[in-house]
Amino acid sequence: MIYLDNSATTPLSPAVRAAMLDAMDCFGNPSSLHSAGLAAQKRIQSAREAVTAALGIRSKTAYRLLFTSSGSEANNQILFGCLSAKKFRQPPRIVTTDSEHPSLLAPLAVLEKQGVEVVRLSTRGGALSLEELEEALTDNTLLLSLMTVNNETGALYDIQSAFALAKAKNPAIITHTDCVQGFLKVRFSPEKAGADAVTISAHKIHGPKGVGGLLVAQPLLTSKRLAPLLYGGGQEGGLRSGTENTIGIAGFGKAAEEGAAALPAFLERMPLLRKIFIAALPAEVRVNTPKNGAPHILSITLPGIRSETMLHFLSAAGIFVSSGSACSSNKKEANYVLPAFGLSSAEADSTLRISLSNNTTEEELLFTAEKIREGLSLLVRR
Amino acid sequence: MIYLDNSATTPLSPAVRAAMLDAMDCFGNPSSLHSAGLAAQKRIQSAREAVTAALGIRSKTAYRLLFTSSGSEANNQILFGCLSAKKFRQPPRIVTTDSEHPSLLAPLAVLEKQGVEVVRLSTRGGALSLEELEEALTDNTLLLSLMTVNNETGALYDIQSAFALAKAKNPAIITHTDCVQGFLKVRFSPEKAGADAVTISAHKIHGPKGVGGLLVAQPLLTSKRLAPLLYGGGQEGGLRSGTENTIGIAGFGKAAEEGAAALPAFLERMPLLRKIFIAALPAEVRVNTPKNGAPHILSITLPGIRSETMLHFLSAAGIFVSSGSACSSNKKEANYVLPAFGLSSAEADSTLRISLSNNTTEEELLFTAEKIREGLSLLVRR
Repeated sequence: MIYLDNSATTPLSPAVRAAMLDAMDCFGNPSSLHSAGLAAQKRIQSAREAVTAALGIRSKTAYRLLFTSSGSEANNQILFGCLSAKKFRQPPRIVTTDSEHPSLLAPLAVLEKQGVEVVRLSTRGGALSLEELEEALTDNTLLLSLMTVNNETGALYDIQSAFALAKAKNPAIITHTDCVQGFLKVRFSPEKAGADAVTISAHKIHGPKGVGGLLVAQPLLTSKRLAPLLYGGGQEGGLRSGTENTIGIAGFGKAAEEGAAALPAFLERMPLLRKIFIAALPAEVRVNTPKNGAPHILSITLPGIRSETMLHFLSAAGIFVSSGSACSSNKKEANYVLPAFGLSSAEADSTLRISLSNNTTEEELLFTAEKIREGLSLLVRR
Repeated sequence: MIYLDNSATTPLSPAVRAAMLDAMDCFGNPSSLHSAGLAAQKRIQSAREAVTAALGIRSKTAYRLLFTSSGSEANNQILFGCLSAKKFRQPPRIVTTDSEHPSLLAPLAVLEKQGVEVVRLSTRGGALSLEELEEALTDNTLLLSLMTVNNETGALYDIQSAFALAKAKNPAIITHTDCVQGFLKVRFSPEKAGADAVTISAHKIHGPKGVGGLLVAQPLLTSKRLAPLLYGGGQEGGLRSGTENTIGIAGFGKAAEEGAAALPAFLERMPLLRKIFIAALPAEVRVNTPKNGAPHILSITLPGIRSETMLHFLSAAGIFVSSGSACSSNKKEANYVLPAFGLSSAEADSTLRISLSNNTTEEELLFTAEKIREGLSLLVRR
């Protein structure tokens, strides 16, 4: 198997698997007062420290990490949570982009129907316009949510400048970044970026599916500007009720620890692999990912063939890639990210995403490029 | 270790562990179109069938099971979901009991502040009053939510009669039961009970923490009377977005399959174990659980000693029990279930919960009874 769909999900690393196996024996309910409960509570706490450390947080008091069941839940949490935390005299505004993950855009569509103003900044060519942002930032702007790395194009947005602009205009604006595709894939610091909230997910960094996180700046919590999405037993400091996914969280902690240690090598290898792959592709294949984009995601447009046809051809050869965002393949709606990037709808229909990890080898990429060449000559009607 | 806190959580069974290990290799994103994705999707589907079968659902079209991240999420989902699915001309009413799990009562308190009428039926002595229920069921009643088995007292409520009464009065009332403590512990059929929605959880039946389920009657879905809580990529038929917890769900499926096979033995053994334990307890210990209650949960009140003192004494001896509901031990609020049952606040403070599983042996219970006797003679000031 040649797995090049690492932005959809990643296999568990051996160390993550071992950590999860180990946590299976630590089965107490973290809320229980006896020692079996305390042991589970400690396990969660050490995973929380590992993930927080992997985010580069130095001060323990600056942020609090909430474990969620997915990046999607974290995105829903920040949106619904800051809207329900207080009453608004006039409908608040949320500024975001036209290329966010469905777990951000879908809840926003619901909120919009309820009267919230939503402004979606354009991301043509994979770049934000600070002028457009400045115009969008009105006095009633509650939240600015911009993803770190686009999941389909690999575009890397300059969220640091955007958040600085927003905070300069109104320090009360909450800044959030969906960093699911950026966490431990690009250099990222919540503090440097000026992010009040950050969404991450375990299964994109060789951890398990079913665990995500929302990093929240302490002032947001202290000032009670974030209400829970799930109410109940009061887990996660009252912000996210429900018995903790101990095994999954232990896996997340280990994945973060490993990913942080491997990041320098990752940052060095990915651009080299990308270069090798692009050089090996047939000349008629167009690379969409901007040169300054995240090097582990490659969006390519094939000439005269639908991406699903090529995807199944490659799948039959044991090569796994993606057409559009896997997370939205349940919906039969047209892809919106690629048109927003600037592709025609025909081009979007012929676009594949190849996403790499530290497991990816040069040989795998050369073989894949060869298979794409073969697929094009076999499948394209000329 | 003598683990008698099975209503807080249970250890993984060996078969569940094996199923989870096996699922670790099936790492594709269930939404991916290639064969790694399809393999993961199949794994989820077969777990869904196993859990649905364990609930005794015969017709595949009668209900749909949504996987959630916990029983707490399922409870939040049914409450917020049926309220946000449509607009109401007058504030709707929700009827429930005064002894539900915090994951039901806490969101209800939030909804009450938003204008929803909430009526909490009394559960004194572990029984519902159908007269009180009948009075509570007004024309604007949207939902009747009654737990199957109380998590602290083991009281088994007659939800079948209650749901029949509600449906007779108004067939449009949505009936929901939080069956987390009843699933595969007592005889229960959603169809017989007349439940439109049922909350269950994996970690109470030797499955992993971090996975729950909400069984929903198809007509509720077809008529769009349930809105999602988590929006995004459209997983779980659009009702619960977020990449699926494949490993956890596989564990849930196996736990349900095993639990269903073991249920007859469980139903036979628990009353015997309970009898042996009660007979071995010191005479001054009072048993609260009603005789017709669920036989695996025993609520006992100790004379002249706080339950936490006894809990720590037993914990030091390697015996794990609970004082009150573990799920609410994050909150420093007074216990509300035991007073609702009829205990004074002093009695509630001296009450332990002993909860059994099929792993529990007669010897463990006799040893525990002996330790309780020892604790009483050592720790009670006379």
